[in-house]
Amino acid sequence: MGRWEPNASGRLSEAAMELYVERGFEQTTVAEIAQRAGLTARTFFRYFADKREVLFAGSAILEEHLIAALESTPASASPMEAVAAALDAAATMLGQRREFSRRRQSVIAANAELRERELIKMASLSGALAAGLRRRGVADSDASLAAEAGIAVFRVAFERWVGEPTDRGLATIMRESLEQLKALTAAS
Amino acid sequence: MGRWEPNASGRLSEAAMELYVERGFEQTTVAEIAQRAGLTARTFFRYFADKREVLFAGSAILEEHLIAALESTPASASPMEAVAAALDAAATMLGQRREFSRRRQSVIAANAELRERELIKMASLSGALAAGLRRRGVADSDASLAAEAGIAVFRVAFERWVGEPTDRGLATIMRESLEQLKALTAAS
Repeated sequence: MGRWEPNASGRLSEAAMELYVERGFEQTTVAEIAQRAGLTARTFFRYFADKREVLFAGSAILEEHLIAALESTPASASPMEAVAAALDAAATMLGQRREFSRRRQSVIAANAELRERELIKMASLSGALAAGLRRRGVADSDASLAAEAGIAVFRVAFERWVGEPTDRGLATIMRESLEQLKALTAAS
Repeated sequence: MGRWEPNASGRLSEAAMELYVERGFEQTTVAEIAQRAGLTARTFFRYFADKREVLFAGSAILEEHLIAALESTPASASPMEAVAAALDAAATMLGQRREFSRRRQSVIAANAELRERELIKMASLSGALAAGLRRRGVADSDASLAAEAGIAVFRVAFERWVGEPTDRGLATIMRESLEQLKALTAAS
């Protein structure tokens, strides 16, 4: 093992994101990421399985946050209220990393394989939310619909947040998008 | 070119689905599919690029049906009413093929690569619906939300339809699921 480096994981993420934006994801090597961060490739592999992992390491933590929030919602909350609480937790976690999120989004949008990976992560998030709702006693199809609707709100709100020149927080935009979905479905 | 075979495409689809259910998707070869259909591998490749294509050839036609239905909805229809009309058209197309749909679903559920491919097709369908709504003058985020909500309804209703021992039609279950989504979002 090499010597301990302060905040190696954060420096590697930062360096990777810079290079992905500058050169494109495919054109960037792990050696270049490590060099930009002032670390070795060996250190890189202590934190990430590969260069794709830098972009998706946060997804598992995001899922944990969402599910923990869902589970701490009072039993009296409706399925969509519980989902909204989970989205609030996601907004709190991601909200502090707008610049990172914005760059990550542009890197993923530019690469078909990464877009597919992101779809899979979102489907996994939806499945975890639905399972969490079923554990709260919500019926099967209600749980699936509420979870899918929640992920739809999450995606649309997230894209607006990273895409718009706005100072408004992600949580505010998520709540707005949920209201928007409510208005859309009411008019059908 | 070999001689013309009546309904070769349908016979190949049928034979492929039988083998995928019996042996699993990965264990089935194109040669076996052709043999089961009483045709040659050469004929198979005249209709399908590969054995995966048998499962997804319908997706492009489904997208065309959905978009055509969306576009023929009166301009006065709300975004979700237009989406509901598109879902009705999907139900009409898929509704006659319940047994095929049921087997296809079980084959896809058993294979990670096929599940990912299905996710991508669903995302493409959602993107096409959103683009269709924007062409009707629906604002960007409303179009995305309505399309994603529509696909959520489609997926949940489709799973109920193939999974439940029911004589009810897919269109009926889709309308019910849309009402269910309306009730869920209203209670948030």
